[in-house]
Amino acid sequence: MEELPGAYGSSGSLFLRLGQAIFGVASLLSMCLGIEFYSYTTFCFLVTIMGLVIPWSLTLAVVDVFSISVKTAARPPGILSIVVLGDWVLSFLSLAASCSTASVTNFMLASGGSSCMGNLCIRYQVAAATAFLSWFLLLASALFNLWLLPSV
Amino acid sequence: MEELPGAYGSSGSLFLRLGQAIFGVASLLSMCLGIEFYSYTTFCFLVTIMGLVIPWSLTLAVVDVFSISVKTAARPPGILSIVVLGDWVLSFLSLAASCSTASVTNFMLASGGSSCMGNLCIRYQVAAATAFLSWFLLLASALFNLWLLPSV
Repeated sequence: MEELPGAYGSSGSLFLRLGQAIFGVASLLSMCLGIEFYSYTTFCFLVTIMGLVIPWSLTLAVVDVFSISVKTAARPPGILSIVVLGDWVLSFLSLAASCSTASVTNFMLASGGSSCMGNLCIRYQVAAATAFLSWFLLLASALFNLWLLPSV
Repeated sequence: MEELPGAYGSSGSLFLRLGQAIFGVASLLSMCLGIEFYSYTTFCFLVTIMGLVIPWSLTLAVVDVFSISVKTAARPPGILSIVVLGDWVLSFLSLAASCSTASVTNFMLASGGSSCMGNLCIRYQVAAATAFLSWFLLLASALFNLWLLPSV
């Protein structure tokens, strides 16, 4: 069961999934609450990707809780392949979204203007940073599960 | 020798490396020739990453040519690990650079202003698209070499 910490169905994986969901929610709240983000394509992209990451991570966290509670890991190769594929695709998308948000925010700050009224740009930066942390944890999950794949 | 097309030391790998270098050079030329790109952090990032991708890919292309010409692939595990690590790091960096460039260009186009005089933004878009293609080929190389790693 615990042969590989962080692999699908272990307690390490549960912590990674919860971390992904928490950082995803933080990024989403930082971007959405009271901001008209939908006038910028990049910020819509970030919100879309975080809206995919959160249910994905929470669903797999539930699976991990179930695996831990029944003390047996059911890992059909088909399911594990889907999990690995989803982790990789979401990790690339969240890296792209966080880097895009960070660079657009940096461009807004450099160009001055009215885009950064109040503490808007700080909130965009927080959203980018938490999305980056979410990417990092998604990558860890993807690597652990990819490592596990040949053994099932 | 040809057990895995695209792995380090095969002719498939040579094509992937040449593709990475060609797209990297195209991205670099599109971004640099006659443009004062260094006033934008994101474009400096793209130029830096493409400046790393091109020598990396060309060096490994030379190794591939040597391996093909002597018809034997010398793959010490240590060297292959470095190649896999370098491929992964450069693929993440080039994805981040191309997405950042694309989103900043999109923001420039949306905000109007003087940033897009003449065909500047089209050239930025070409640079982002060729960097994205370079990322795609780097990812292919990284996956093939990662697959080969446990067998050496």
